[in-house]
Amino acid sequence: MPTEPAGPGRADAEPAARPQAAHSHASLVDAHVGRYAARAQDMAASEIRALFAVAARPEIVSLAGGMPYITALPLDAVGDMAGELVAKRGTVALQYGSAQGDPGLREGICEVMSLEGIRAHPDEVVVTAGSQQALDLITRIFIDPGDVVLAEGPSYVGALGTFASYQADVIHVPMDDDGLVPGALADCLARLAREGRPVKFLYTVPSFHNPAGVTLSARRRAQVLGICQRAGVLIVEDNPYGLLGFDGEPQRALRADDAQGVVYLGSFSKTIAPGLRVGWALAPPGIRDKLVLAAEAAVLCNSSLAQLMIRDYLAGQPWREQVKVFRELYRDRRDAMLDSLGAMMPEGCRWTRPAGGFYVWLQLPPGLNSKSMLPRAISSRVAYVPGTGFYADGNGADYLRLSYCFPEPARIREGIRRLAEVVDAETEILATFGPGRPGRPGRAGPADLTGPADGLASQ
Amino acid sequence: MPTEPAGPGRADAEPAARPQAAHSHASLVDAHVGRYAARAQDMAASEIRALFAVAARPEIVSLAGGMPYITALPLDAVGDMAGELVAKRGTVALQYGSAQGDPGLREGICEVMSLEGIRAHPDEVVVTAGSQQALDLITRIFIDPGDVVLAEGPSYVGALGTFASYQADVIHVPMDDDGLVPGALADCLARLAREGRPVKFLYTVPSFHNPAGVTLSARRRAQVLGICQRAGVLIVEDNPYGLLGFDGEPQRALRADDAQGVVYLGSFSKTIAPGLRVGWALAPPGIRDKLVLAAEAAVLCNSSLAQLMIRDYLAGQPWREQVKVFRELYRDRRDAMLDSLGAMMPEGCRWTRPAGGFYVWLQLPPGLNSKSMLPRAISSRVAYVPGTGFYADGNGADYLRLSYCFPEPARIREGIRRLAEVVDAETEILATFGPGRPGRPGRAGPADLTGPADGLASQ
Repeated sequence: MPTEPAGPGRADAEPAARPQAAHSHASLVDAHVGRYAARAQDMAASEIRALFAVAARPEIVSLAGGMPYITALPLDAVGDMAGELVAKRGTVALQYGSAQGDPGLREGICEVMSLEGIRAHPDEVVVTAGSQQALDLITRIFIDPGDVVLAEGPSYVGALGTFASYQADVIHVPMDDDGLVPGALADCLARLAREGRPVKFLYTVPSFHNPAGVTLSARRRAQVLGICQRAGVLIVEDNPYGLLGFDGEPQRALRADDAQGVVYLGSFSKTIAPGLRVGWALAPPGIRDKLVLAAEAAVLCNSSLAQLMIRDYLAGQPWREQVKVFRELYRDRRDAMLDSLGAMMPEGCRWTRPAGGFYVWLQLPPGLNSKSMLPRAISSRVAYVPGTGFYADGNGADYLRLSYCFPEPARIREGIRRLAEVVDAETEILATFGPGRPGRPGRAGPADLTGPADGLASQ
Repeated sequence: MPTEPAGPGRADAEPAARPQAAHSHASLVDAHVGRYAARAQDMAASEIRALFAVAARPEIVSLAGGMPYITALPLDAVGDMAGELVAKRGTVALQYGSAQGDPGLREGICEVMSLEGIRAHPDEVVVTAGSQQALDLITRIFIDPGDVVLAEGPSYVGALGTFASYQADVIHVPMDDDGLVPGALADCLARLAREGRPVKFLYTVPSFHNPAGVTLSARRRAQVLGICQRAGVLIVEDNPYGLLGFDGEPQRALRADDAQGVVYLGSFSKTIAPGLRVGWALAPPGIRDKLVLAAEAAVLCNSSLAQLMIRDYLAGQPWREQVKVFRELYRDRRDAMLDSLGAMMPEGCRWTRPAGGFYVWLQLPPGLNSKSMLPRAISSRVAYVPGTGFYADGNGADYLRLSYCFPEPARIREGIRRLAEVVDAETEILATFGPGRPGRPGRAGPADLTGPADGLASQ
């Protein structure tokens, strides 16, 4: 299996890797290859997909996926609820609904958001198929090809995929252990203003970031809001993990302090279940109207059954207690991962210490490459996501994402043990074959989470 | 209430009516109004939406909606099935799934399509949130702003909304009682070729057309396929009603005779239930790959629960018999509508005689305008959809769509009685106030279904 790191000149960011190769292959078999829209020209399956298919084998400890631990749900009770909903209210639950979403569910969503200090009216909510659809719709209504979107570096891979599909130009802003760095955001905005490049929005995951595992501090929240307000830049606050903090009360959402300048995206995928595909956007009326029309063009309406199931669940099940069950379960797993990392990972590795959510972001020792290391890891029966998937610019090869949400603690420990061995072996190869290998073994700088992105992200 | 027909110069096609007015209003309240993408600039709620909100009142007979009659489903059995699915297989049904869709469901879909002569492999199927999402994704991967899409005139309003949201240039091709007119299609393609304007695809609803209620004859199916093959034009065959024919066996799908040149869109919304949002696209591998990636960017994956419910329903419920129940129920309603129209509608009205599906397409007497007549109809407690919504070019004002799928036969008869009175009253007003009113009372030509579209659609 190849263990050579990619050369620094390669720009094949995940997941849309190697468009050239994909094209020349596709042209042999696809009679329609010359006819796709510009936005679809570079759509090609990631080269790591094939590896992940292998990684689904049971003998492999997957620290790659972001699947919530559904087993902890009261499945019998949810089943009864679903059965009764269909039998007694099937003529509504199985029928078309409105594009904006069920009004009663939208009330329940406002109650959920109140836990993060948000005061909102159900009219401002648009129900979506997970927050991914909310991301897609907000991108659809704001982004023309070439428009600038700011995002943390690293950023959520699913958001980057959506932005790419609308041909946005994503510019990363660095983070550190307290989340997005306000000074770097201000500098970036100033530079873009000088260049005459308007910014359509800042996309941010302030709490328990995916993949970085860090949280924007309260002081920085005020700073980020102020910077964006002064610059007239819309904030898209993506907050699927906000209620899954391990210590104390949920953080106050950015949206709680700015109803006009923030579109808030929420999801029940992590607090209830992703298989229902229910998320939402909370937006000021003008944007809300466009989102509803865009949703109608995209799907007519979302599933009435799924919406009413969530509505019934919020009304009839002890959902706050269930969120607490999830919090404690994920905290145990976070602890298992951090303890194992501390005990087993070789020197030169660094990682974040999440206070909630699903993910740890790990930096490899200098010279190692997470993407080229992946085949060896899978041979050693452990899987992770290479860091390049979380950058729009091809950076991140020295990082990887570890998730602790799905495997049980003993499996997490075993997975980290295997990973530590792989990193050890890679380090040994690097030491044996010396500095002739690509990589930047000599570099050492201030610790931050970003890859080396053109002046915005120092390394 | 206004009864003046719109002047012939107005081009405010439904549903994206009056972008100008919407903009100047929005700018008063929407701080983000200057920042939307070009595709979202003209997104504005239709002016007839407000009327439809009123039309939902129970005293109004709605012949407007396309809601299937869910009451005819065995809701207890479906409820039991749903409850058991969640309780016993909830860790799969409530979890994330693949972007392409559940493999077992895709097998079931191939079995369903075999009823229309289609031989397909489950790998070629992409499960979508209703066929509307399939339409959205196919448009997303093929359409750059200004690209040409051919569609029947009239065409499905939801497709036109999607095409507009990607800034396609829709050109209508006329139909008659046997569906799309092959000669007109050939002429249109030749004209566009002379103009150097490539056609991205032909969008067609060959069976039990929405809104026209007509079906492409078997002879014409071969002709349309041949014309598109020679011109190298992809066909998007949208077939939600194919199994809901009232006489004999289902028509052979276009896709049954061309696996490379046709993308077939199917849906369970009319044969099972729309509230689950399960449809699909069947596409050649190159297009299938792009669709999967586009689906991932749009929603990550569709609802596992909804997909497994359909899979279980196909495997465990007598679905063929249930489709037969729906067919007979809708045939009775079609009969009630055609009988009432024949008995009650004033002279000068013409309408189609659907052999399946949900809709009758009715042409008003010369000089009447279905859009300006709608407020009067709603005052008289009957609702329909004005014809302009089914044209991308503002035509169709002398047509309206009547649906017979949801109201029971007695209600249909009462609705047609009320509609006939409204048309009578409008005709009387026209006669009283004479030819000074707008309209073209003098015209008379060959009967076809299209509005007066720039040379393509004769009137």
